[in-house]
Amino acid sequence: MSKPLVFEKPLGMHDTLPALYETKKRIRTKIASFIQSWGYQFIETPTLEYYDTVGAASAMLEKQLFKLLDQEGNPLVLRPDMTAPIARVAGSSLKNAAYPLRLAYDSHLFQAQQREGGRPAEYEQIGIELIGDGTRSADAEVIALMIAALKEAGLENFKVAVGHVGFMNKLFLDVVGTQERAEALRKFLNEKNYVGYREHVKQLKLSSIDERRLLALLGLRGRKETVDEAMNVIDNYESEAALKELQSLWSILEAYDVASDVTLDLTLVRHISYYTGIVFEAYAEGLGSPLAGGGRYDELLEKFNRPAQATGFGIRLDHLIEALDGEEVEAPISCLIFTKEHQAEAIAKAKEMRERGKRVVLQDLSGVADIDALTARYDDISFCIGKKGKENGS
Amino acid sequence: MSKPLVFEKPLGMHDTLPALYETKKRIRTKIASFIQSWGYQFIETPTLEYYDTVGAASAMLEKQLFKLLDQEGNPLVLRPDMTAPIARVAGSSLKNAAYPLRLAYDSHLFQAQQREGGRPAEYEQIGIELIGDGTRSADAEVIALMIAALKEAGLENFKVAVGHVGFMNKLFLDVVGTQERAEALRKFLNEKNYVGYREHVKQLKLSSIDERRLLALLGLRGRKETVDEAMNVIDNYESEAALKELQSLWSILEAYDVASDVTLDLTLVRHISYYTGIVFEAYAEGLGSPLAGGGRYDELLEKFNRPAQATGFGIRLDHLIEALDGEEVEAPISCLIFTKEHQAEAIAKAKEMRERGKRVVLQDLSGVADIDALTARYDDISFCIGKKGKENGS
Repeated sequence: MSKPLVFEKPLGMHDTLPALYETKKRIRTKIASFIQSWGYQFIETPTLEYYDTVGAASAMLEKQLFKLLDQEGNPLVLRPDMTAPIARVAGSSLKNAAYPLRLAYDSHLFQAQQREGGRPAEYEQIGIELIGDGTRSADAEVIALMIAALKEAGLENFKVAVGHVGFMNKLFLDVVGTQERAEALRKFLNEKNYVGYREHVKQLKLSSIDERRLLALLGLRGRKETVDEAMNVIDNYESEAALKELQSLWSILEAYDVASDVTLDLTLVRHISYYTGIVFEAYAEGLGSPLAGGGRYDELLEKFNRPAQATGFGIRLDHLIEALDGEEVEAPISCLIFTKEHQAEAIAKAKEMRERGKRVVLQDLSGVADIDALTARYDDISFCIGKKGKENGS
Repeated sequence: MSKPLVFEKPLGMHDTLPALYETKKRIRTKIASFIQSWGYQFIETPTLEYYDTVGAASAMLEKQLFKLLDQEGNPLVLRPDMTAPIARVAGSSLKNAAYPLRLAYDSHLFQAQQREGGRPAEYEQIGIELIGDGTRSADAEVIALMIAALKEAGLENFKVAVGHVGFMNKLFLDVVGTQERAEALRKFLNEKNYVGYREHVKQLKLSSIDERRLLALLGLRGRKETVDEAMNVIDNYESEAALKELQSLWSILEAYDVASDVTLDLTLVRHISYYTGIVFEAYAEGLGSPLAGGGRYDELLEKFNRPAQATGFGIRLDHLIEALDGEEVEAPISCLIFTKEHQAEAIAKAKEMRERGKRVVLQDLSGVADIDALTARYDDISFCIGKKGKENGS
């Protein structure tokens, strides 16, 4: 442990400078307005929550939580996700608001990082939660809204993979018998390590039928017909019910005209453990990790004393901006430089320019050490300097 | 220490529900656009900073800091103010950008609270820093911008008190001789406990001249002529220089046409210790604490390896909204309820309404437990229900 230098930031923490700030703001504003047009209402929750309530419910790895103690010794966390805090709100401040609740957020989330150069430890996520509606219409609405919001932000080349936690879990349990062994299989899929999965399955020494079923799972990716193919792999009521959910979801996505953006992917695993049904993730070309995702979590709300079926999505603003890969464009700024004698005149001129919608810096010449360096930053420079009544352009 | 209930939030932490969220957003957007029109560029810094760099420089009371340790055992803080983080940025990410720098922020700040019902432990502040300009023009610009931004937000009944840290400190040191005894005097003024100040001064057993000078300070509040009155109380170069700064500030504020909103107040004490010159605070009628404030801090930047004179202000969004005391108005939301048979038609209708700028909730009837309770939330309800081809209004 060495004393950090004065200019250092904690591991995984970043500054957002003006150009990127404006890009983020533009994208954030577009997405938020679009989400509002679907009737979702934005709320805000505290950055800090009790570990015992929200921290534990968030199902994040312990080592990824930023933990601290309050004055009374209760453990607090910097919120690692927004689903659990919003569930807390649904069970407390909004407990008298009828279900279904359509809530939205635009919040900073925190995940401690173990090493330099890794993933950001703080990032902004915009998302929604649709709480108290267990229909396929709700699943479809959430997926359709996510896709439409990404398009609204200008994203073109992306795909949304849709899977079902219930289908996969039942299949694995049926074949390998224990949660622990099922988890080993899920781990390979989560890492998209299909070669590893295949080898692992072969080492399990299963009956040839069971081995075929586990290997067949890898092929269950595609469009509508994937559901029919999947029907051949399973032989139990729960998995069949899960597939029927995907079937009816698909036809609603067609009505929303977004089915062409979707791929059914029965190998899809989400890294958060509270999901119970249909799950999904959005991937953009050339981006290593998903830029958005979500799914159904029908058991989380009961932890907050208000049981409900629920689904939602979150869009990571940093990943989305990386995927958009647009030029960062700052609005032009004019700079008006004056001497003491011309101050009142310069103030009036700046006021008039600002009222016409311009961004104007008003600068006392005597406050500038290096006038060339300063003016290089601005898009146009004018002067209120010299003999009264005369004005020199740059 | 008892286990917190699932719906509890940490001490001093609050949820922001939809109506207040929209009010905050509206005010925040207005102020931010206005600040941009003066050529300030917004940046963002991490919520967590190293204690040894930003935490210590922020000059906040130790017990008010939220502290935690990173993986390597370095102490971190949740940022208690934005002046120190922005100074860090000026000295690192922006070290090649010429002074003066005009930066702005809209950030959450954190101050741990000791008891229930006290001040908020997390709040949003919008502000600016003008770094690298030591002129009175810079002091005046910052004050004029703060006043204009508050007016832009709709605030009418408010006053800005302007004082000078240098003037007061020199007077106190001259009379009572030690920083410790000067601090005792400042404490009374900071609490606006003028009776206590007066009694304390009388107990000091000073010469009658010195006693009169300390008591005369209490009367040094008013308009332009306050500076002349103050000249009679002091007899040293530094205090005279401070008064001359106020004099020239006043005439620039007149040029900005905001002098009528300002009161000179030589008893003004700011609670943060890094101020070095002209300081100011905005008060609104009926509000217990200032809603905005700031001042000159010419010694902070050298801690970040890039010495500079600087000034800035911060507006507390929560206090401003309290002062505005307007009705929280939410945008109207329509609700369109459909049955399975009419889903495609309902999706098309909602799309068309949203494109016309409406906020529309689309709700599957089978997802609703209590239809009366749900519809009570929305401003108008329509149905896509019943025989194909027929549509029932509410």
